[in-house]
Parts: sequence; structure tokens; C-alpha cells
Amino acid sequence: MLDELKDYLKKLEYINSTIALLDWDVMVNMPEKAEKYRSEMLGYLSGEYYKMTTSEKLKQLIEHFKANDDLDEITKSSIDKIEKEYNKTKKIPEEQYKHYKIAASLSYSAWEEAKKKSDFSIFAPHLEKMVEYNKKFAKYWGFEQNSYNALLDIYEPSITTEKLDVVFGELRLAIVDLLKKINASNVSVDTEYFKKYCPKEAQQKFGKLVLDKMGYDYKKSGRIDESTHPFTTNFGNKDVRITTNYDENDLRKALYSTIHEGGHAIYEQNIPDDLQGTMLAEGASMAIHESQSRFYENLIGKSKEFWTYFYPIAQNEFNNFQGVSFDDFYRGLNEVKPSLIRIDADELTYSLHIIIRYEIEKMLFNDDLEVKDIPYIWNKKYEEYLGVKPKNDSEGVLQDMHWSDGSFGYFPSYALGNLYGAQFLNKMKKDILDLDEQIEEGNLKVVHEWLKNNIHKHVKRQITPN
Amino acid sequence: MLDELKDYLKKLEYINSTIALLDWDVMVNMPEKAEKYRSEMLGYLSGEYYKMTTSEKLKQLIEHFKANDDLDEITKSSIDKIEKEYNKTKKIPEEQYKHYKIAASLSYSAWEEAKKKSDFSIFAPHLEKMVEYNKKFAKYWGFEQNSYNALLDIYEPSITTEKLDVVFGELRLAIVDLLKKINASNVSVDTEYFKKYCPKEAQQKFGKLVLDKMGYDYKKSGRIDESTHPFTTNFGNKDVRITTNYDENDLRKALYSTIHEGGHAIYEQNIPDDLQGTMLAEGASMAIHESQSRFYENLIGKSKEFWTYFYPIAQNEFNNFQGVSFDDFYRGLNEVKPSLIRIDADELTYSLHIIIRYEIEKMLFNDDLEVKDIPYIWNKKYEEYLGVKPKNDSEGVLQDMHWSDGSFGYFPSYALGNLYGAQFLNKMKKDILDLDEQIEEGNLKVVHEWLKNNIHKHVKRQITPN
Repeated sequence: MLDELKDYLKKLEYINSTIALLDWDVMVNMPEKAEKYRSEMLGYLSGEYYKMTTSEKLKQLIEHFKANDDLDEITKSSIDKIEKEYNKTKKIPEEQYKHYKIAASLSYSAWEEAKKKSDFSIFAPHLEKMVEYNKKFAKYWGFEQNSYNALLDIYEPSITTEKLDVVFGELRLAIVDLLKKINASNVSVDTEYFKKYCPKEAQQKFGKLVLDKMGYDYKKSGRIDESTHPFTTNFGNKDVRITTNYDENDLRKALYSTIHEGGHAIYEQNIPDDLQGTMLAEGASMAIHESQSRFYENLIGKSKEFWTYFYPIAQNEFNNFQGVSFDDFYRGLNEVKPSLIRIDADELTYSLHIIIRYEIEKMLFNDDLEVKDIPYIWNKKYEEYLGVKPKNDSEGVLQDMHWSDGSFGYFPSYALGNLYGAQFLNKMKKDILDLDEQIEEGNLKVVHEWLKNNIHKHVKRQITPN
Repeated sequence: MLDELKDYLKKLEYINSTIALLDWDVMVNMPEKAEKYRSEMLGYLSGEYYKMTTSEKLKQLIEHFKANDDLDEITKSSIDKIEKEYNKTKKIPEEQYKHYKIAASLSYSAWEEAKKKSDFSIFAPHLEKMVEYNKKFAKYWGFEQNSYNALLDIYEPSITTEKLDVVFGELRLAIVDLLKKINASNVSVDTEYFKKYCPKEAQQKFGKLVLDKMGYDYKKSGRIDESTHPFTTNFGNKDVRITTNYDENDLRKALYSTIHEGGHAIYEQNIPDDLQGTMLAEGASMAIHESQSRFYENLIGKSKEFWTYFYPIAQNEFNNFQGVSFDDFYRGLNEVKPSLIRIDADELTYSLHIIIRYEIEKMLFNDDLEVKDIPYIWNKKYEEYLGVKPKNDSEGVLQDMHWSDGSFGYFPSYALGNLYGAQFLNKMKKDILDLDEQIEEGNLKVVHEWLKNNIHKHVKRQITPN
């Protein structure tokens, strides 16, 4: 019967990987006319996945093995993982789940249109439905104190608003305080040279070099492709793919998206072989995953040490940096400038964008805010925390897709990732006394190895404390 | 219940398309280390397909609708098609089918090794098994007169050795006769300029132009990628993909593989929308499919009219043709020179390669030849028909993969495709009086339209005679 269970979990992974590959192909290769048929293919596969994660068979397997104490650690964790997934779907009445999926798809389309037309009212009724559904789901799943906690738990198990209020509260005050000082300093930084024309081929070459130094095995098990929105995906740990998007008038965009996705991808490549097919072969949580990408992007990729090695190479490869001193370059790269769009935010202000979204989500799920009033609150908070105000909803509340398909509770992962990353760096520096020198010499392998041994081996598996 | 049937057939198509996409990705994108996991994914999906095409449920649906006279033409054909597939698999005992699949996979590996080492004895025991299995299968399926007929029927429904003996007999005599005359003529043709260095980018550009003129919609529903072996695949009629392989020292290779695959691909793009999801949306037969690719490759792509339009462009794009007159170029392109390798054969001698394989397959299935004696017969026939003799098995009997996985009966499709294509051209010339002039002006659209209206709409659907 154990073989049966293992077989069942493997099949689930095959379907998951297949869906991921079809999705990757949509973003990277698919001819435009193929959209309808592809969505039917994907619908079929998702349906099969749904059937298998809600089946009577799976229920029996879970019950049988939950009563069985004589299991190895990995199998126990597999059971916990799949039980969580079973409960998450099965507790929602099937008809409701189906209606939700349809509503989510309509909601996504409405969001796309609303964003294009910069008109929140197009999206509002759909967003209301998404919130209502998720409130109901939270009740089905059960929660303590706050229905929003049930949603947070999906992305970062056991995180709660009680914990986040403390952490984000402190973080917000500290950032806003520092930001005020920076604004008052009146130091201005030149960043125009980043925007000089820079051919895609040169960007590609440099990006590949950086990833190679980071230890991304793009030769035998990884790829770099192009898509409108950069992302990472994988089908097992031997086929990991990132995408990027080249802007020939701002070389920072592809470079930092490449480093960011590289952080995710290296995590996936380092997931131990023995976890393949167990449902555990994925990042420990969304926030831990983001900690890897944002760690490389900001803490490594914007550090003085990193650029001590890479700046001479960049000066050679690009025409952008003639006459730009290392100090000016370093300052330009780390410019702090409050802005409206999350994904373009600098390292300091980024978390404020997240905190605003977190506060709004919490209010929505605590019935402290109605959907129609989101834009007002959004703009108010942007002005208060960041000192900037959206001119319209498109550069305000409509900028992110997360809410359109009901992914409430996801945003905090990004800011938590920032915080986790800072703690990892702190510990890493204690463990590797010459870390700075190693990075200055381009030896990012020491970073990779530390992460591999201390972070990447910890995946979805629940670690029972000693 | 009709909805149930339609739904069932659609699901089968989704699985088919998913397998095809995963296979395409293996050839075009997949990192090498991912092979094992990908084959597991593909194994799972093939298993699901097997289950669905042999299920009790499908049997019931077929029986129900076979007894029902009140069906539209398309549904009737769908039922016939799926019944054929059901019988083909279901008539083989399940255990035997499983063993066969494993044996076929081992046989393919053995063939690869044998070809590399040019040692037929490595492959022979596997080939024996493949022949034995297929003899048994032919018995399960039933046949008239000749077990080989059951295999031919898979690729070209209702073709038989009785018919092929007549057609191929005549064809062989005619070709061998013409070949003797050509050899005796002592005309020698210069083709060295084709082998001058020609950068990939220029070949890509020219290939795209030719496909565009042919009417391949590569912008919205088609793609051209690179893989070691060129092929065509599709997932519905709105996502058709061809691949090619550039040889910078012989521009003919990619060009003619592109035109060849383009012929297949245009067929797939022109399959009517209303046949999607009915299991009928594929070429009428393997030979009809080959007729399209080989028609474009040889009858159009090597014609004087075609190059009247394209030669000036090619002279502009490539450095190969400086000082080469149109007549010399045209002669070079159509050089006849008996050779050992089928896929490199010229237009005239190509069918002889097929006829040799056909004669050997027929002997094998009629117990007139033992596997161990194939190399002897192979070499003898090459000498007799083509006047050339393989130095070793690698450039002889081991050159093609078809037999390694048991695809006996497939080869005749290529030669039949040549013959069908010639007949189409004959009729096309009667229907389009200024056909030559149109092609000379690069207006290949008239060819495309004729094929679309007269050939491409005829797919797997059985046409009941009026």
C-alpha cells in the first residue's frame, strides 16, 4: 500500500509538471491563435489534478497512513502535505469550487480590462466576489481569531496577522523614518547612464555570466528564455527555467530580473533528489522562496563587493559606464526614490508597497473596508508612507494581478522574504569570515554553498524539532 | 450520451496534444539532465491514453453509437476512427502489449548502439522480437492473404501488397531504366557552390520567406525552431510547429527540410476547425501527409518556375551563387546521383530506397527471409537497383530507426506520397491554366489554395461515396 501511495503522489507531480510546462510554453513560445485550445488542454489537466486531490482513494490512503506510526520522515511529511491539500479543496463544496474557478477567470479578464482603461469600477464587482468567496473558504478551512490568517497560512504556514502586525509595524516605522532622512539630505544621484542604449546581446552575455558565477547550472539543467513578464518554473529539479525581458533603454531591468529569478531557480536546482515525486520538492514557503530571489537581487546584487568584481567586466561589455566612477555607479544603483509601482521599487521602499497591500487585505477580511473604498485608502496610504500619489487607478490599486484571481495573503511573502534574507546574510557573515573578500573576487560559490547547505535542503518537509 | 462521447474524444485529443508538446520540448528545449523525469511524465500520460482507449466505458460508447443510425457524418467517422484504435490495442492481450512496449524501447536503444558501432548483430535479436510481435499482432487484428497487409493498413488504410507489388513493380523498372540512361549520359553537374560557407542567419531569413510565400502562417499559428532531426508537430490546427537544422556548409539541407516540413505544416493548419476534438483532425493517411511535404519539396521546390522567382533573391541573400547561371543552378539542384542514404537521396532515386525496404518487409512477414540475412539482401538490392553498395551496416540496413520500434509498413508511405503528389500536380495544371506563370511570379498562394480545397479538407474522415 505504501507503493500505491508513492505512485499516487508521483502521478500528481507528473500532472503538476505537465501543467507547468504547458504554462511555460504559453509565455515563451505559443502562437497567439492557440490560446483557446491551450486553455482547454490546461483545463482538462487541472480537472484531473482536482479529481485526484479530492478522490475517495486519496482519502483512504491518507486515513490509512495517518494511523500508521511506522513511517519514515519523508513519507510522514508527504502525507501531511497531501492531507493539507486534500482538506483545502475538499472542504469547499464541489459546485462552489467550480463556480469560484469560473469567477476567478472572469475576474482576471475584468482586471486586465480595468487596468488598461484605468477604471477600478470595471474590476470592483469581481473583486467583491473574490473577497466573498475567500471569506467563505476561510470559514470552511477554519482559522483562529482572524479569517485572513487562513489565507496567510496558504503561502507562509503558521504566520498570522498578530505576528505580522508587530513585524510590519516596526518595519514601516523604521523605513518611513529612514526615508524622511534620505529625502531631507538633498543628495541627488545620477542614474541616466543606465538608460543609454544597450543592445540585447550584450545584456544576454552579461546576464549569463552573472548567473554562471551564482552557480545556476544553465548548461545542463537550466534555461534562460524571454517572456513579457519574467518568471521561474521547473519540472523536477533537473529542468529549471527562468525568463527575462530585455529593455535596450535600461539595462537594469533584465539584469535584476535575471538575478532575481536566478535566486528562485538555484533553490529549485538544489532541492534534493530523494524528494522528487514526494510532493515535497518545492520551496519551504513562498516567503522563503522570495528570500532567495530578493537576497541575490538586493543583498548580493547591489552590494559593493559584488560590483568590485563585476564592474570592470560591465565597463568592458557595455558602453554605458564610460567616465562613471565606481562610487558614482554604486550610488546610482542604490538610489532610493519613492515610486508608485511595486515591481520597480528600490530596495528600501519596496517593503512599504507590501505593507500597504497587507493592511488593505487585513481590513477587507475584517470587514473594516469595502471594496469600493479601496482606491481611496490605497492612495491615502501611498501618500502617507511613500509621499507619492497615483494619478490614476492603473498606476495605483490596479497595478498587480494578485487580487484578480483571489490570491489574498500572498503579498506579505515578499516583505518577509526581504527580512529572512537579511537574517541569512547576518548568519552567513558569521559562518564565512572572509565572505566580503570572496564576493569581491567573484567567488559567489561560497554564497551558493552556504544557501544550499543551510536553506535549500529545507523544503516543504516539516522538520520535527530535536 | 452524445455529449459524453464528444467529451471523451476531446479528452483523448488533449492528452495527445500534451504528449506532442512534451515531445516537441524534448527535441527543441529540454536540458539534457531532465531526460529521466521527462520520460516518466511521458510514460504517465501515455498510460492514461492507453487506459482511455481500452476502457469499458469507451467500449460501451462505441457499441451504443454503432447501433445508432441517426448520427451526423462527422460523428459516424469519429466512432469508426476510435473503434479502429480501440480494436488495435484491445485485441492484444494487455500483458503482451506491456511487454511489447518495453521490448520496443530496448530495441530502439540497441539500434542506436548498433548504428554507432555499425554492428547489425547487436540489433538483430531485438529486430527478431519486433517482427515476431508484429506477426502476432497482425493475427489478432486479422488480415486477408498476407500478414503484412495488416501493418500496411495502419499507415495507409486499405493498401495491400497486391496493389503495391503492381505499383512499385512498374515504378522500379521505370526508375532503374531512367537511371541507366542518366548514368550512361556522362553529363556531370557542378554542385560545389551549395557547399560554400553560408551563415545560419541568411538561411533562416530565406527559409522564412519561402514558407511565407508558401502560405505557412508562421506569424500567428506556426513556429520554426531548431532540433537535431527536423520534424513537424501540432497541438490543434492553431499551433503548428516545424523544426529544421542548419548546416552552414550546405544550404540545401535546411532549405529543403524547411520546405518539406512546411508542406506537412500547411496541411495541419488547413484542417477545418469543426474537426478539432473529434479525433479526425489529422492527415487522411501517412502517405497523403507525405504527398504534401514531398510535393512542395520536389515538384514545387525544385522546379524551374519556383526558382525563376526565388533565384534572384537567393543570389542576393547568399554568397554562394556568384557567377552561377540559372541553368547551371537548376541543373545542380536536380542532380541525380545514386547514394546510400535515403534521406539524402535525390528526387529520382528516392523511391528506390523505399522499394528496397518494402520488398524486405514483405519477405520478413511472409517468412521468406530471416532477420540475420537482411544485411546481405539489403546490400544486394542496393547494388542491383542503385548500383551502390554500403561499406558497412551503419550506412546500410541500420540507417533508419523505423524498424527499431516496430514501425513496419510505414516506409511505403513515402513513395506513395511521391506518386500522389505527381497526380495532384497533373490535376492542378488542368485546373489552373496559368499555374507555371503564377509560380514564376512567386504566387504560391494558388498552389496553397488548390491543395486546401482539394486535399487538406480531406482528413481522417471516411468519405462515403455518393
